[in-house]
Amino acid sequence: MADREVAIIVGVGGGLSAALARLCAAEGMAVALAARNTDKLAGLVRETGAMAVACDASQPGDVERLFATVADTLGTPSLVVFNASRRVRGPIQDLDPGEVRESLMTTGYAGFLVGQAAARAMLPSEQSAGQSAGQSDGKAMGQGSIFFTGASASVKGYPQSAPFAMGKFALRGLAQSMARELAPKNIHVAHFVIDGGIRQGGDDPRGPQRGVDGLLEPDAIARSYLDMHRQNRSAWSWEIELRPWIESF
Amino acid sequence: MADREVAIIVGVGGGLSAALARLCAAEGMAVALAARNTDKLAGLVRETGAMAVACDASQPGDVERLFATVADTLGTPSLVVFNASRRVRGPIQDLDPGEVRESLMTTGYAGFLVGQAAARAMLPSEQSAGQSAGQSDGKAMGQGSIFFTGASASVKGYPQSAPFAMGKFALRGLAQSMARELAPKNIHVAHFVIDGGIRQGGDDPRGPQRGVDGLLEPDAIARSYLDMHRQNRSAWSWEIELRPWIESF
Amino acid sequence: MADREVAIIVGVGGGLSAALARLCAAEGMAVALAARNTDKLAGLVRETGAMAVACDASQPGDVERLFATVADTLGTPSLVVFNASRRVRGPIQDLDPGEVRESLMTTGYAGFLVGQAAARAMLPSEQSAGQSAGQSDGKAMGQGSIFFTGASASVKGYPQSAPFAMGKFALRGLAQSMARELAPKNIHVAHFVIDGGIRQGGDDPRGPQRGVDGLLEPDAIARSYLDMHRQNRSAWSWEIELRPWIESF
Amino acid sequence: MADREVAIIVGVGGGLSAALARLCAAEGMAVALAARNTDKLAGLVRETGAMAVACDASQPGDVERLFATVADTLGTPSLVVFNASRRVRGPIQDLDPGEVRESLMTTGYAGFLVGQAAARAMLPSEQSAGQSAGQSDGKAMGQGSIFFTGASASVKGYPQSAPFAMGKFALRGLAQSMARELAPKNIHVAHFVIDGGIRQGGDDPRGPQRGVDGLLEPDAIARSYLDMHRQNRSAWSWEIELRPWIESF
Repeated sequence: MADREVAIIVGVGGGLSAALARLCAAEGMAVALAARNTDKLAGLVRETGAMAVACDASQPGDVERLFATVADTLGTPSLVVFNASRRVRGPIQDLDPGEVRESLMTTGYAGFLVGQAAARAMLPSEQSAGQSAGQSDGKAMGQGSIFFTGASASVKGYPQSAPFAMGKFALRGLAQSMARELAPKNIHVAHFVIDGGIRQGGDDPRGPQRGVDGLLEPDAIARSYLDMHRQNRSAWSWEIELRPWIESF
Repeated sequence: MADREVAIIVGVGGGLSAALARLCAAEGMAVALAARNTDKLAGLVRETGAMAVACDASQPGDVERLFATVADTLGTPSLVVFNASRRVRGPIQDLDPGEVRESLMTTGYAGFLVGQAAARAMLPSEQSAGQSAGQSDGKAMGQGSIFFTGASASVKGYPQSAPFAMGKFALRGLAQSMARELAPKNIHVAHFVIDGGIRQGGDDPRGPQRGVDGLLEPDAIARSYLDMHRQNRSAWSWEIELRPWIESF
Repeated sequence: MADREVAIIVGVGGGLSAALARLCAAEGMAVALAARNTDKLAGLVRETGAMAVACDASQPGDVERLFATVADTLGTPSLVVFNASRRVRGPIQDLDPGEVRESLMTTGYAGFLVGQAAARAMLPSEQSAGQSAGQSDGKAMGQGSIFFTGASASVKGYPQSAPFAMGKFALRGLAQSMARELAPKNIHVAHFVIDGGIRQGGDDPRGPQRGVDGLLEPDAIARSYLDMHRQNRSAWSWEIELRPWIESF
Repeated sequence: MADREVAIIVGVGGGLSAALARLCAAEGMAVALAARNTDKLAGLVRETGAMAVACDASQPGDVERLFATVADTLGTPSLVVFNASRRVRGPIQDLDPGEVRESLMTTGYAGFLVGQAAARAMLPSEQSAGQSAGQSDGKAMGQGSIFFTGASASVKGYPQSAPFAMGKFALRGLAQSMARELAPKNIHVAHFVIDGGIRQGGDDPRGPQRGVDGLLEPDAIARSYLDMHRQNRSAWSWEIELRPWIESF
């Protein structure tokens, strides 16, 4: 078990998390999938050998338990991907404050909780920090990648979509701050701007009307996540945008 | 009263809100100041004739009461400025989740509540919408300016400052979304990136070490807010950065 | 003459330069207008009392003569605005390299020549630098504003418009570099992103189809330039976007 | 020959072009190297089997000859990388206009010439366009990747470095315009922001003082270029930043 990389994917639902799980498993990683409701994960678990953990990522206790369970069962994660989000739409004057708050909690605050737990797992413990081999200038080094999944709304606030812009902008601010803070500790934090619709399963009804490759293929996105995870630290990226070739931007 | 412009300034504390209150009063506006604690506002209220309202801007009920009180007392606001924020700092692994949540609520979510209440006050009511004179293409028009105060952290996530980046990025996403949504309804939404320290009172201890104009003068910032409020709608700005001449960026 | 501010406006043609000339004159400034062809400026010269100078701003010698003439006749400029540009459009494979080069020279390189000449005029001469009164930390200070007019293409490269994007992006890079270099010397460099069509004369044929304020009013733009010029140096902006309220962005 | 991919790398000099040549050759591509002076390329040519072509990329005739020679000798390129640039530094008032112009020509205009020639080579000829198999909605498709190498100065104008900012901003505007224009024609245009120093050869004197990975390893950069070239078109990126883990940003 010590030789296998461990990946944690939070916010499983759409096509991206499943594609990531498959790719990570194919690369020999042990995979943990975290979702509010794990019932729908049965097929994916069977296919990839992944472990499924029930977790509401906007609850500190849930996130703590998730990381503790993975640490005990699979080992220290070297790749953590945060995919959760919740979209609320409507004219600004009609939005329900409670729903806006929930959207911000799920899209932004949950990203903080997962990012913090990942950093804690990847940074050297204080006891071991002193004698760590991977140190530079006397500072102990960490190890691993923490990736956040953004959207078009991460960099552009669309009308009638203020809550989603708030959550996604917040997540990007978190990712950028963590990238600046943790890169010098050998932890690679990156943010992905998914600028377009992601195909949901092979028979996505939007496929035909969008034309060839009019939706992002989850496998293609997952490939770029893995390329990013494999980057040599002398040339790290903190952000990348991905969009279909025929998407206007 | 019908002839006086009404300004609401939320998040009073530092030098900027006081300077805005003075400038708005000098321009003949009726001013309402909203803060959690109104005790410290006594001097400013005396000086400007402003009305002080106790309000925790992260509480929907408080914000609703604030706008209702102003509507009843002063009339419909034509300028609303949101200045509140709460900064939490520290290494990502050491941050307290509860404090991070509070920071996001005060810096981001409160901005939504105030922005929404301002939009509701400035948009035509549904009854009056039909017969409004200020319509274009049959759509009823609103009227007024909604301004959000950002910081360097609105556009750059600094290390050890993830919570503030989250809140300020979220506020910028809100402002951009609202600007795109409300500009065509004749409501001017703008975001100000205050990139530097603001002088707090005449004897700010940081003044001497920063040199001449090493801090932003609150009166100079307030001037740019008013210039923005006075912009002709054929040439509106949605964002502006302000920094001292000697600040590196 | 010593008491009048001097403004130089380069690239006269459309509505913006005329509006700037009128506003500067109304504010009591002595105005110089520079254009390749000064024939069409007769009316504006009569109206504003401005001086017209023939100048191809992409020629170093022309720009040098322009600034020398103004220095001799009106005095040291405190406001220089660069408005010149040349747009070339078409599919990338069909563009004529010679025209692309000219576009880059007129839109970008001419901006450098004018910006450099303005900086030379506004910085203290080396002889006077030692005894200057306006020094800080022993460094001599300059004085004045250098403004560059950009377009939507300054921040977004549109299809079939590569040459204009190249010239306008280059101008923005110049403005940003000069702002960082000259702000600490008391020279205010700023860049204006004009995001929309500017009304050209009172009977602009695009007016009606764009609706009320569907084009930027030149007078409204000029107002924002003057507001920027008057900013207190403790709160300078280096960039501002201006667009009609009904322009989508 | 028909089965080998063809890569053209323009602006050979530093470590990046050599690393790209090695990686492309290792991937089975036929490689053409274009530089003003090909003398220094002898070793690299021997090592990679590449073809060296003398070419001043700021001269339309030279660029035309380069692409014609490659077409005749190796075939149609599927990857073209533009690496050339020329940096001029100094206080704005001291810069030599002729050198600034040369810098803009080499860094920006040459990029246009190479980008245009690449587009012409990759787009279907007008004769073949009608019967092309790779068409979508009746429009003929192209094929290939056109990559531009930027720098920190592509997105930030540093003081005393206006000419380099102008050239690199212009190149980015070009790349963004071409990306929007050519992506729907199946040509992948991307821009790389290299944010840090690139190691020049194994014994780069800056290496030790920068510490472990304090410079970007050319092989690591080349890897990201190839990953980008291999991206599935349903999830293309148009820009990526690369920097050493310990570089502050």
